[in-house]
Amino acid sequence: MEEVARLRILVLGGDGYLGWPTALHLSRRGHDVGVVDNFVRRQYDHEMGVDSLVPIRQLQHRVRTWEDVSGLRMETYIGDLTDAAFVERTLERFEPEAIVHFAEQRSAPYSMIDRSHAVYTQTNNVVGTLNLLYAIAERDRSIHLVKLGTMGEYGTPNIDIEEGFLEITHKGRTDVLPYPKQPGSFYHLSKVHDSHNIQFACRIWGLRATDLNQGIVYGQETGETVLHPDLATRFDYDGIFGTVLNRFCVQAVVGHPLTVYGKGGQTRGMLDIRDTLACVELALTNPAAEGEFRVFNQFTESFSVSQMAALVADTYPGTVRIEHVEDPRVEKEEHYYRAAHTKLLDLGLVPHLLEAPTIQSLVAVVDRHRDRVDFDAIRPSVQWRKTTSALRAAVGTNAL
Amino acid sequence: MEEVARLRILVLGGDGYLGWPTALHLSRRGHDVGVVDNFVRRQYDHEMGVDSLVPIRQLQHRVRTWEDVSGLRMETYIGDLTDAAFVERTLERFEPEAIVHFAEQRSAPYSMIDRSHAVYTQTNNVVGTLNLLYAIAERDRSIHLVKLGTMGEYGTPNIDIEEGFLEITHKGRTDVLPYPKQPGSFYHLSKVHDSHNIQFACRIWGLRATDLNQGIVYGQETGETVLHPDLATRFDYDGIFGTVLNRFCVQAVVGHPLTVYGKGGQTRGMLDIRDTLACVELALTNPAAEGEFRVFNQFTESFSVSQMAALVADTYPGTVRIEHVEDPRVEKEEHYYRAAHTKLLDLGLVPHLLEAPTIQSLVAVVDRHRDRVDFDAIRPSVQWRKTTSALRAAVGTNAL
Repeated sequence: MEEVARLRILVLGGDGYLGWPTALHLSRRGHDVGVVDNFVRRQYDHEMGVDSLVPIRQLQHRVRTWEDVSGLRMETYIGDLTDAAFVERTLERFEPEAIVHFAEQRSAPYSMIDRSHAVYTQTNNVVGTLNLLYAIAERDRSIHLVKLGTMGEYGTPNIDIEEGFLEITHKGRTDVLPYPKQPGSFYHLSKVHDSHNIQFACRIWGLRATDLNQGIVYGQETGETVLHPDLATRFDYDGIFGTVLNRFCVQAVVGHPLTVYGKGGQTRGMLDIRDTLACVELALTNPAAEGEFRVFNQFTESFSVSQMAALVADTYPGTVRIEHVEDPRVEKEEHYYRAAHTKLLDLGLVPHLLEAPTIQSLVAVVDRHRDRVDFDAIRPSVQWRKTTSALRAAVGTNAL
Repeated sequence: MEEVARLRILVLGGDGYLGWPTALHLSRRGHDVGVVDNFVRRQYDHEMGVDSLVPIRQLQHRVRTWEDVSGLRMETYIGDLTDAAFVERTLERFEPEAIVHFAEQRSAPYSMIDRSHAVYTQTNNVVGTLNLLYAIAERDRSIHLVKLGTMGEYGTPNIDIEEGFLEITHKGRTDVLPYPKQPGSFYHLSKVHDSHNIQFACRIWGLRATDLNQGIVYGQETGETVLHPDLATRFDYDGIFGTVLNRFCVQAVVGHPLTVYGKGGQTRGMLDIRDTLACVELALTNPAAEGEFRVFNQFTESFSVSQMAALVADTYPGTVRIEHVEDPRVEKEEHYYRAAHTKLLDLGLVPHLLEAPTIQSLVAVVDRHRDRVDFDAIRPSVQWRKTTSALRAAVGTNAL
């Protein structure tokens, strides 16, 4: 293993889809890792009556398995970031040098179910992050906060998207200002609120923070999760938490048409799960300066939804049908999209690009667990134009 | 009285400094007015151990007095916007055509006292507004929301501030995007969060909203409040809720130096309380279109803090000393400031400018109540650079 600076890193949301493999990766790379989670992501599954396609073990079991496999220990802290005393206590006990913050409600459709889910999402995300900012400012202002944001904070402007800031010349004067945001759900809005709050905390308290505006992640296996089945991370394909490429692979395997929302011209930045881990580590080992709020656009390639569907259809050995369904969201179905993403490349990121082998490995994951696919969970159920969308009925959930 | 469209208007926060005179003004102008409040503004006074310089009566008494004086009735709804059922019930009962939303925690220093006040401010303001947006979307999407924002949402960029949006040309392409925001407190941030949420609600649900980015208001008397002493509105001069010009007038009258924070080059948009009422009515009678989110910069003149101090010193008949104290905020003490404010003028606003007679009338108000001045309440107590600022001690509050 190459020499890296050994850091004490707290991974918030370390039981989740990306938090868990990030914790493993950082541990394997020689860092001291603490994992924080309140398991609310698992509770959403119960609420929605859905489940990860790949079975996942409880955190305590995962951590023991990791120790058996690698000989490396990770401390766990079970609690909720909206509980300020818990946040303060955790920082006091673990004494992190850096914090990776994945611990937010991260589904746009979930935030759009109804009023209470919108309020929950914004309160949970904003208050958890505020508590964290205060705890850092009170305990140790040198702690580097690496916060997961989203490319969705920018929306789809008709100009190039830059990394967090934009130099604007207006009426003969010039300034570098925060990039204007046009988020597309109450979830995406919560991330914009966070970004503004974090930037302000850096300004007034001299905190150091990196806001990773991440694209849509695909993939399920990393260099560490494949070491033992009990180290597996989630694989979501349902209409609420599933990301689009994972969903298309499930649909291909089970012979369901790939459901493209609307025209399919919606273009987004994407990245491989392994690149998420690499990006987070690059941000950690090249920290922001004192008082600096910096933004990295964390994705490697852009695809339209139609391009992704075509890619899966072309790669999958069997017959795949593509079906356009009414777009449940309010979004531009065709638009200009060009977003800068050079800062992480400059730090040394070597991307895994989305090509046939990646699709094939995703399809192989789905194939191994195809008996667990719940057809009924795939269709979009949340309508942006409505203020209340019904969740799955208690009756009829065994549609498979 | 000239002919105006008669509207059913709900004034949220209608017991506050601006909400109450706005309700009176709209009532006198022939509109059907309902007043909503939870009296939390009065509770802040108890928490801080401060009080309005001008005594104010309870809402129920004020409303009865208004009926005695004018023959006009106003309905009252007592409750909290963070209580979604209350919001829904109130809209159902009153059936407003327009809603003026003043019902937020509106003090920057209050939001910066400590973690819990920051979290309270953002939760209270954001959740209250989210509940309102959902209630409007569910009940009647044609209701026009007139929301009080603040010029402080913009911060102090080195380019001209426009009204909510900015045409940006970047790498050969052009778009009109939300004006980039650099708010200067957790309170100002809450207003930015609101603006983003409201704009999104207009986009997905076709709501109509006007965001009034208001400057700092001065003055205490309006055409209606002067009709009877029991109709008076608040006059705040304390370090937490007092606005700067009101505070300077109090300091002049009691022989205290005018306390300028830092260099005093901080420049802000200002307006007379009577212009607030006129602006709100202009927004109401010229509503936003379906799906439109528009922003008006609601101020009439810009002054630096030093200019305001000089104006008071020059106008006041006695001797006035100006004292520069350390700036408790993190802000630029000298900066470029030029902000557009033509949209309300275009609708017909005729501003009351800040000249000697206005200062003299403010000084007269203070003079009538000078025996109520609490010296100890004037000094700034909240430090932006700290995460916790002590409130007034229980002992020693009777410093006068």
